[in-house]
Amino acid sequence: MKLLEERIKKDGVVKAGNVLKVDSFLNHQIDIKLMNEIGKEFKRIFSDVEVTKILTVEASGIAIAAIVAQYFDVPVVFAKKSQSINLDGSIYSTKIESFTHKRVYDVIVSKKYLSPEDKVLVVDDFLANGCAADGLIDIINESGATLQGVGIIIEKGFQDGGKRLRERGVRVESLAIVDAMDDKTGEITFRHQS
Amino acid sequence: MKLLEERIKKDGVVKAGNVLKVDSFLNHQIDIKLMNEIGKEFKRIFSDVEVTKILTVEASGIAIAAIVAQYFDVPVVFAKKSQSINLDGSIYSTKIESFTHKRVYDVIVSKKYLSPEDKVLVVDDFLANGCAADGLIDIINESGATLQGVGIIIEKGFQDGGKRLRERGVRVESLAIVDAMDDKTGEITFRHQS
Repeated sequence: MKLLEERIKKDGVVKAGNVLKVDSFLNHQIDIKLMNEIGKEFKRIFSDVEVTKILTVEASGIAIAAIVAQYFDVPVVFAKKSQSINLDGSIYSTKIESFTHKRVYDVIVSKKYLSPEDKVLVVDDFLANGCAADGLIDIINESGATLQGVGIIIEKGFQDGGKRLRERGVRVESLAIVDAMDDKTGEITFRHQS
Repeated sequence: MKLLEERIKKDGVVKAGNVLKVDSFLNHQIDIKLMNEIGKEFKRIFSDVEVTKILTVEASGIAIAAIVAQYFDVPVVFAKKSQSINLDGSIYSTKIESFTHKRVYDVIVSKKYLSPEDKVLVVDDFLANGCAADGLIDIINESGATLQGVGIIIEKGFQDGGKRLRERGVRVESLAIVDAMDDKTGEITFRHQS
């Protein structure tokens, strides 16, 4: 997505340790106009599949999910990071390791909000090692719902999450794939996508 | 807001300990159509003030802020709950006590995203004891920005947050104010608002 790549080049900041900071428009301050363009693009890309729910994980996926959901005209469900898991049988749960925070979260979704009839589009801001997507897919599988695809704003193509998910047969669509970045020069190289 | 009150009566669940569960449409699964009506209503109510940023706090405020921001045509900034505060002078920080989780969070906003020129509308899902709003107002004051008002979806009128904020001169507009609720009968009494 040209508009997104240009924005990442303009406002993204490459930091040591493969960190790409986009908190001026994506995950701390959020440019809602850009989110609307992203929502339209996901709708265009996934127009061939039925979607009944948008699923994401708190916190930075939520704004994206809310805006994207308008174009699919469906509710959002966001998985919650939980300190105290209440294993009373009313929730789906999994563990997600955060690349940014270097810790493992318990993540939960109430069984009331995902059912075998649901056709789910997962959306998130970043795909790096794929742990968040893996966790959300675990929850979808546990619920019996159908995974229709994973929509990612920025994929780090030099980490293996996207490759691993695609090899498992998951449809992953990333609006921008960063194949390389250099924290010395600030240069960001995007994968060419047709 | 009639539509919202009807939805709370229909789908809200009153639990012991003054808990009102609205996670089927507001803060776990999110009804985006309802959020759009809420966004329009906040725009109508706050049409007399200039707004340059919508400020909220993760996680459940984010979806609301994203949808509301579309009607004001401004960016969202969400305050982040932080485990490890980096006190390097680049952030505003405060502490917020969560009524639901019975713990205190450090909450931060990057100084890049709030400045003395900003005119800020705070939005959140709930107002109970007012700790989240107090924390966000602390951050706005620290930044030198102007607080234009606080937009709340559900205020618990039997807790003192709304009263305390209004006595301090803060403009608080709540789309539904619950004056009483009964976990035995499930009955919810709304304050009449003109």
